[in-house]
Amino acid sequence: MAFRLTPHERGFYPLFTRAAENIARAADDLATLVAAPPAERPELARRVKDAENAGDELTHEIMVKLNKTFVTPFDREDIYRLTSSLDDVVDAMEEAADRIVLYRLGELPAGMKTQTDVLRRAAAATAEAMPQLATMSKLQEYWVHVNSLEDEGDAAYRALLEELLCPPGDVDAAGVLTILKLKEVVDTLEEAADAFETVANTVESIAVKES
Amino acid sequence: MAFRLTPHERGFYPLFTRAAENIARAADDLATLVAAPPAERPELARRVKDAENAGDELTHEIMVKLNKTFVTPFDREDIYRLTSSLDDVVDAMEEAADRIVLYRLGELPAGMKTQTDVLRRAAAATAEAMPQLATMSKLQEYWVHVNSLEDEGDAAYRALLEELLCPPGDVDAAGVLTILKLKEVVDTLEEAADAFETVANTVESIAVKES
Amino acid sequence: MAFRLTPHERGFYPLFTRAAENIARAADDLATLVAAPPAERPELARRVKDAENAGDELTHEIMVKLNKTFVTPFDREDIYRLTSSLDDVVDAMEEAADRIVLYRLGELPAGMKTQTDVLRRAAAATAEAMPQLATMSKLQEYWVHVNSLEDEGDAAYRALLEELLCPPGDVDAAGVLTILKLKEVVDTLEEAADAFETVANTVESIAVKES
Repeated sequence: MAFRLTPHERGFYPLFTRAAENIARAADDLATLVAAPPAERPELARRVKDAENAGDELTHEIMVKLNKTFVTPFDREDIYRLTSSLDDVVDAMEEAADRIVLYRLGELPAGMKTQTDVLRRAAAATAEAMPQLATMSKLQEYWVHVNSLEDEGDAAYRALLEELLCPPGDVDAAGVLTILKLKEVVDTLEEAADAFETVANTVESIAVKES
Repeated sequence: MAFRLTPHERGFYPLFTRAAENIARAADDLATLVAAPPAERPELARRVKDAENAGDELTHEIMVKLNKTFVTPFDREDIYRLTSSLDDVVDAMEEAADRIVLYRLGELPAGMKTQTDVLRRAAAATAEAMPQLATMSKLQEYWVHVNSLEDEGDAAYRALLEELLCPPGDVDAAGVLTILKLKEVVDTLEEAADAFETVANTVESIAVKES
Repeated sequence: MAFRLTPHERGFYPLFTRAAENIARAADDLATLVAAPPAERPELARRVKDAENAGDELTHEIMVKLNKTFVTPFDREDIYRLTSSLDDVVDAMEEAADRIVLYRLGELPAGMKTQTDVLRRAAAATAEAMPQLATMSKLQEYWVHVNSLEDEGDAAYRALLEELLCPPGDVDAAGVLTILKLKEVVDTLEEAADAFETVANTVESIAVKES
């Protein structure tokens, strides 16, 4: 089921690449934010918010292109899913950055840095893979890599849940409130990692159909 | 890609319109419930529950029609998404109403009234837009309007999160439990607003394909 | 819209059946886990985890087959939805089992046993229904049954929410932390029940198209 693409239809690839590069920048800023002292976080959260807005515009551009293109380079539903899951990644990253600042969180658990490091690496791999959709080369390496990063993220996530919800000593009401806030951030970072896995699975679907 | 529709296939529009009008009534009852004293809430929650049941029947009717119709007025997946997201709206509204009563909540934060007012306005706009799908007129106004309402809802939501999770004074265990309950309701109302945005984005997809 | 299937394309049915039988085993282990003393839970959670891994492999096998098959026995999107929702069921069951062990929970509320009993019965019904997709027989009984199980699960879920979040006496910070943990498990079990409903609705979609 290989396609010959007209230049017009090829226009999807650069848009996916730009969406993934935008996510890679947001992931860098998010990782920096999680490692930064509280005073420097609002500026970094603003940058992640800007990336979310840029991502929304790219999502919109891809969807309009999809709706106006009769013959698409791969299945319409695959394009739809790829676009939606890239959008989910940046939405979750923005939400995590926003909540850290909104809830005026102090020191963050070390495991959160592992989570954002996993996101940073998954984002870099995704940005590298997107241009390869045009030639369908080396994509298997990519999705195997993202799936193993997801396992790493999942281990960090479970360790964080145990650390937060089973604290060693006594906890007071203010402590429980802090746990609530941190858990929300940690859950949202895990959602971003899951969304990267959906991106990788969709790329696999596309590649298998083309093979 | 314009279609000529037989009367049979046109049957989707009245169903979407009825689903949206049903949601508009539920949104009015939900807004009334949030502003009402606790004693009046159970009756209003029952009305929202009735609307959810009516919505389920409409969803089922649309899905059966979709599965039995060979040529649909627009893409099957768009009909599927539009129906699902209308269903998500009323499910979230019903869940919010139910939890307020189930958790025997007392006074509700003022920001929750802003949330339900946004939902009421988004529902009215959606009920007005659905019949316009038949002629594809004035739909852009609609989705721009819903997207701006979503921004308004999001601002109210973030302010509520900050208010709930960063209370000014000391908080005790019972207070944290109340925060947990209120946060669940506030999150669910935000889900309803997000589902309206999905409705509007799907309408945009349909309209762009037809243009 | 009836299809004649080649032996090759019929290969989807055994895969759906195996996926559902795998879920039925996981549901039995999960129900046993919830009724078991804490010391016996880790071994049972490992078995549910094994089932999740087996489910992931089946999901992958179905997706590869779907992507390589030009003519599918029913709509590609229906196969995709059925596979995804079966996967969601086992993911949620694994997550619930894992959190019970990870959070070192002691005695569990009786209502949780009702939840896992509903899951066990929905899983058995689904495993019985999957082979019937090949002949489209007795499927209506199945989805009516699963929808009524979902109602039963929902009633148990709401009763648990009220029990957990509106405890009769005073509660301290440690108690609120326990409520947080239990609520996460209860919510996840409800997600599994919802995913069974999506499985049943998708089966209904498929059957209506074929009728």
